[in-house]
Amino acid sequence: MKRVYMDHASATPVRKPVVEAMLPYFDQHFGNPSAVYDMGSKIKQVMEEQRAKVARLIGAKAEQIIFTSSGAEANNLAIKGVSLAGQKKGNHIIVSAIEHHSVLNSARFFERMNFEVTFLPVDEYGLVDPERLLGAIRPETILVSVMHANNEIGTIEPIPELAVICKEKGVIFHTDAVATVGNIPVDVNELNVDLLSLSGVSLGAPKGVGALYFRDKLRLMPLIHGGIQESGRRGGTENVPAIVGLGKASELAAGELTDKMNYMQNLRNLLVAGIQERIDQIKYTGHPEKRLPGHASFCIGAIEGEALLFMLNQQGIYVNTGSACASKALKTSPVLVAIGIPADLAQGSIVFTIHNSNTVEEIEYVLEKLPFAVGKLRSLSPIWREKAAA
Amino acid sequence: MKRVYMDHASATPVRKPVVEAMLPYFDQHFGNPSAVYDMGSKIKQVMEEQRAKVARLIGAKAEQIIFTSSGAEANNLAIKGVSLAGQKKGNHIIVSAIEHHSVLNSARFFERMNFEVTFLPVDEYGLVDPERLLGAIRPETILVSVMHANNEIGTIEPIPELAVICKEKGVIFHTDAVATVGNIPVDVNELNVDLLSLSGVSLGAPKGVGALYFRDKLRLMPLIHGGIQESGRRGGTENVPAIVGLGKASELAAGELTDKMNYMQNLRNLLVAGIQERIDQIKYTGHPEKRLPGHASFCIGAIEGEALLFMLNQQGIYVNTGSACASKALKTSPVLVAIGIPADLAQGSIVFTIHNSNTVEEIEYVLEKLPFAVGKLRSLSPIWREKAAA
Repeated sequence: MKRVYMDHASATPVRKPVVEAMLPYFDQHFGNPSAVYDMGSKIKQVMEEQRAKVARLIGAKAEQIIFTSSGAEANNLAIKGVSLAGQKKGNHIIVSAIEHHSVLNSARFFERMNFEVTFLPVDEYGLVDPERLLGAIRPETILVSVMHANNEIGTIEPIPELAVICKEKGVIFHTDAVATVGNIPVDVNELNVDLLSLSGVSLGAPKGVGALYFRDKLRLMPLIHGGIQESGRRGGTENVPAIVGLGKASELAAGELTDKMNYMQNLRNLLVAGIQERIDQIKYTGHPEKRLPGHASFCIGAIEGEALLFMLNQQGIYVNTGSACASKALKTSPVLVAIGIPADLAQGSIVFTIHNSNTVEEIEYVLEKLPFAVGKLRSLSPIWREKAAA
Repeated sequence: MKRVYMDHASATPVRKPVVEAMLPYFDQHFGNPSAVYDMGSKIKQVMEEQRAKVARLIGAKAEQIIFTSSGAEANNLAIKGVSLAGQKKGNHIIVSAIEHHSVLNSARFFERMNFEVTFLPVDEYGLVDPERLLGAIRPETILVSVMHANNEIGTIEPIPELAVICKEKGVIFHTDAVATVGNIPVDVNELNVDLLSLSGVSLGAPKGVGALYFRDKLRLMPLIHGGIQESGRRGGTENVPAIVGLGKASELAAGELTDKMNYMQNLRNLLVAGIQERIDQIKYTGHPEKRLPGHASFCIGAIEGEALLFMLNQQGIYVNTGSACASKALKTSPVLVAIGIPADLAQGSIVFTIHNSNTVEEIEYVLEKLPFAVGKLRSLSPIWREKAAA
């Protein structure tokens, strides 16, 4: 059966050269990087080379990268690590209302530990207003976390504008760049951030690895205590094969980004125009321009997103509804609530995340199947029939 | 060059059928297990099959297994997760003095958070005395953590005897079984534990995956907050290929253990007898009988362990000194201090962890090279020359 996969924000296949780079580290070069003999030190050296590759991709130095087991772990380490290390200075943190669950739930965890958390509202496009951020900062604020781009609505936040405010106020600024690394340029200096989380999901790197960039001398309590791995900032034997995969994927990504962005954007524009032409009563969510190049998201009236997903699934089309990790947990997406989508319309959320492995033919296939599926579901909907009769 | 690897507690090569089982999950079955469409639910199902395999290996139920990124993360989740969830009941935890750094440093972290921690002493063999544990338990004690076996001295702790005391006192009992799973029988019911950490290091499973067994209804604060993965107990997209690897390795291990134990024990006994015959002024550390079958550890007088490691390394022999993760961090092993080894003798620590991939010929090779290396180093040691002259 035909398979048109457009849920690349949730997972991507690992690239062939990445798998090949990883393979020798399973059964040949299997030593523990902490071991003092040559089998260990050679692996350690390989790991440091990967650290440099990941650093290079985001304009950082190798020693500013901590490998983690996922973007979610990197987010937890950033929020909890800074909050715990900084609790003598203050007990207030600010996160946007549309952060990933790993940020939101880390913040909520601190609310139960005598911290105060401000969940910063966003505008109708999902943008955080720099003025509003400035107004929310208090003397006891120690950390602000605003994501680089939102997976569910594609909006890219004005990170440099937000970061400069934090710098002026002496507040540590973290950004979750899991949705952007591999999709748009990400440079820690241009973004002016103190901490940045990433994963290899858009790079064709394997699952089981992520990284946290941290500015020099920033104090960070480890999330996983253990030995002296990752300069004492993250215990546990390093996942060498996955780290090699992330390094290889970062190296490959560096030279490809401009072409990839243009290609994804063209496909996305084709998809968006086609959908807007063929389906009525829909809302294109997120910012129309300030958004990820391969990202298209809609709320479709009188439709239940999950039902639509299943119908498309039967045609071999794979898309998402709501944010990837939360899709089973919640009925109404908190992101869509935050941008003011009415609850009934929010039910009809559909998210396409296109990659450069997708083709024009695949877009055309979706444009053929989607209106039919929407029509079918609407024909079964009492709300829709009422509206049509009115 | 000949390579005789006897540091299997630090790392083991991933078994061929395990790598093969993992491969399709990198680029073919790459979906996110949380996705609602069939590509996701099929992966989810595969993951649940692995959970059942890991559970079966330790006599648990599938729903009692949480996948983590390492044994160290499992230990952190156990110590921190129980302490945070139980802080209303009490603020005292007990760990043995010879725990892995991931347990010790998690406990020390809570000392800074208004918890009291008892580091329980051990006897000359590294054994925790049940009577002493009983004496250390207070009304405010919420957690006891004693490892199943110690990596550095091989001693197997009397877990059922310790666990029954905790059960009677209503205290949660955790054991770190990273050193035992795959080396001796591990059954959560026989051990009578509430929580058990494991990794696949002795199973030939990949790095980047571990697991925590938890008794039904035990309250546990997540270490990594995020979505609803792992029943809400561990956020972040699951490392599917590594989980498949751990599942396959667990399945393979189940039928092999008795033969493997006998084989490893024979090799170990050959090694120990040979070393004791050929080298004087040595101490066999850990318990002579209650120890891991492939484990041999010595403190060699007038020797610097790391120097010996490098000399053996030149002969293609790979062994350890002190515990794997700490070997670069500390000069004197806290485990050897805890069992009362004088500081100068503790410097000469050497640890062999034999696997069933090792052979009699390899033992003979070690027995040929080791005495020569020791003699060479001693001939350079002023302490030794003084002693020899006396």
